[in-house]
Amino acid sequence: MVRRKWTVGVDFGGTNVKLGLVTDAGRVVGTERFSSKGFNGPGRFIDGVSLAIETLARSAGVTPAQLRGVGVGAPGPVDVEDGVVHSLVNVPGWRRVPLRRLLERRLRCRCAVENDANLFLLGEWHVGAAQGIRQAVGVTLGTGVGGALLINGELYRGTSGAAGEIGHMVVHPYGRRCGCGARGCLEAQVGTAAIVEMGRGALRRNTGGLRALFRKSQGPLTPALISEAAARGDPAARQIWADVGRWLGLGLGSVVNLLNPERIVIGGGVAHAWGWFYPGLIRALRAQAQRVAASAVRVVRGRLGEEAGIVGAAVSVWSGDR
Amino acid sequence: MVRRKWTVGVDFGGTNVKLGLVTDAGRVVGTERFSSKGFNGPGRFIDGVSLAIETLARSAGVTPAQLRGVGVGAPGPVDVEDGVVHSLVNVPGWRRVPLRRLLERRLRCRCAVENDANLFLLGEWHVGAAQGIRQAVGVTLGTGVGGALLINGELYRGTSGAAGEIGHMVVHPYGRRCGCGARGCLEAQVGTAAIVEMGRGALRRNTGGLRALFRKSQGPLTPALISEAAARGDPAARQIWADVGRWLGLGLGSVVNLLNPERIVIGGGVAHAWGWFYPGLIRALRAQAQRVAASAVRVVRGRLGEEAGIVGAAVSVWSGDR
Repeated sequence: MVRRKWTVGVDFGGTNVKLGLVTDAGRVVGTERFSSKGFNGPGRFIDGVSLAIETLARSAGVTPAQLRGVGVGAPGPVDVEDGVVHSLVNVPGWRRVPLRRLLERRLRCRCAVENDANLFLLGEWHVGAAQGIRQAVGVTLGTGVGGALLINGELYRGTSGAAGEIGHMVVHPYGRRCGCGARGCLEAQVGTAAIVEMGRGALRRNTGGLRALFRKSQGPLTPALISEAAARGDPAARQIWADVGRWLGLGLGSVVNLLNPERIVIGGGVAHAWGWFYPGLIRALRAQAQRVAASAVRVVRGRLGEEAGIVGAAVSVWSGDR
Repeated sequence: MVRRKWTVGVDFGGTNVKLGLVTDAGRVVGTERFSSKGFNGPGRFIDGVSLAIETLARSAGVTPAQLRGVGVGAPGPVDVEDGVVHSLVNVPGWRRVPLRRLLERRLRCRCAVENDANLFLLGEWHVGAAQGIRQAVGVTLGTGVGGALLINGELYRGTSGAAGEIGHMVVHPYGRRCGCGARGCLEAQVGTAAIVEMGRGALRRNTGGLRALFRKSQGPLTPALISEAAARGDPAARQIWADVGRWLGLGLGSVVNLLNPERIVIGGGVAHAWGWFYPGLIRALRAQAQRVAASAVRVVRGRLGEEAGIVGAAVSVWSGDR
């Protein structure tokens, strides 16, 4: 029998589905991706995953039957025991989908399904920025602000699998309206939509770098463009990131006071602006957090970049091996 | 050998030290108290505890030597492993006091020292409102707003024993200045000082019930007086409690989103106003918390009243028996 040395991790995002072939050492040795647009149910997703796995396996010289398993991170609440996806934040038509069972039937190997923020932290814990840590908090910055908790060396999911929603902690009760209906959630203050809205405000007032960049790009206004303007010295763009850092620091200061973690790992697409928002973040966090807890925590950027979710998805398959 | 059936629980508050003789079933069968004013170090505290224990034991017909042990809840951060009190919030002169060792030397029995909010939750978990619960949050309302976390059926203390500081989660970044230096911490918004300040504002505008009660009482303005005015129909007093409830609900909504607990137990002196602040609390909590997590949690008042800390202190001694 061939020893099963590879696992496939699947990161199911609102825009793309990314797959990676992951070695037992947690290294990604091949990737595939396809668009997640137009998924009205699990059928096309499973077709796409199945096809991409065949391609990945072929490139590694193995057959899909030789894979150790497939792990999937989904952007929404997941019942991990049953492998059921309750709903997906930015993908319609998914309601209580028994994704693990459907995948196992098609792929004929062990499958695991988890919330994507949990897998980000699991990946960073396994081979990234939270290695060896027992109390850690993971934060993913993007369209949504996701969160995950590692408590006593294990993912903590809460009473009904809904724990870790750092993005819906309130940081400003009179702040921006959140997609969840409340006001001033961390996600409402620092999610991509909020950053872009701050950018639009700056564009209206701004005659400098951001405006010039935006015109030249001829694309939509994005956090990446605002970072570029900050890098070129635009004070309005820098102020946006200072504000983002301040809201993050306030929210994470509350998390530090509540959980006294040893490490906070920040990832997701918007983490590319780390250098711009980190100073404001750490200043606000230290002002909010109690001395003992503040001095116990290190806030770091994730080390695995875009691959954290893929690695975490593979790790979640191995956890089932135990 | 006489079977040791009683334990002494000590609740070390900023105003009084309360002691109780606790049966193995968690029932308090006798209490003593003495003032905690003028404690500049542990000497007088230990003298007072020693004397009160003798009185308690005598009344139960046992000698102090027959006690199973003595547990102490301290209002500040405690290193539970070493039994060291780092500092006390409202009692000066306590810095890194090895209280457990000092008590054991004097009392010649097993002693335990814990943070008082942790003991509140431990008491309510053992024989009160959180029995059988694995994920619970405890909140004590008073001069300070204390917090404690039960995670997977165990007290969670965090990386350096500083977890559970619900009172220093931010609920309003432009709110009242907190004793910790930050702004708009939950404690700054709903601690006794904030409630009294809101009461003073109401007194200035108010020509009704609160003003009449305050004049008649000839004492200081207290949360209890504001509750009485609310009970008599004073709209300004009722508005104060509605505001207190709203801030509590916002803060606890964040806690629910982060931890997805099954139960939140609220105690402390200000919990006497439960009926006045609960409606605002639960409305704000449901607006802030995500649906799955909100429907999983019950917010209840502690069942042990003033005795929760005493019972919890006794339970902490038994935990050491295992």
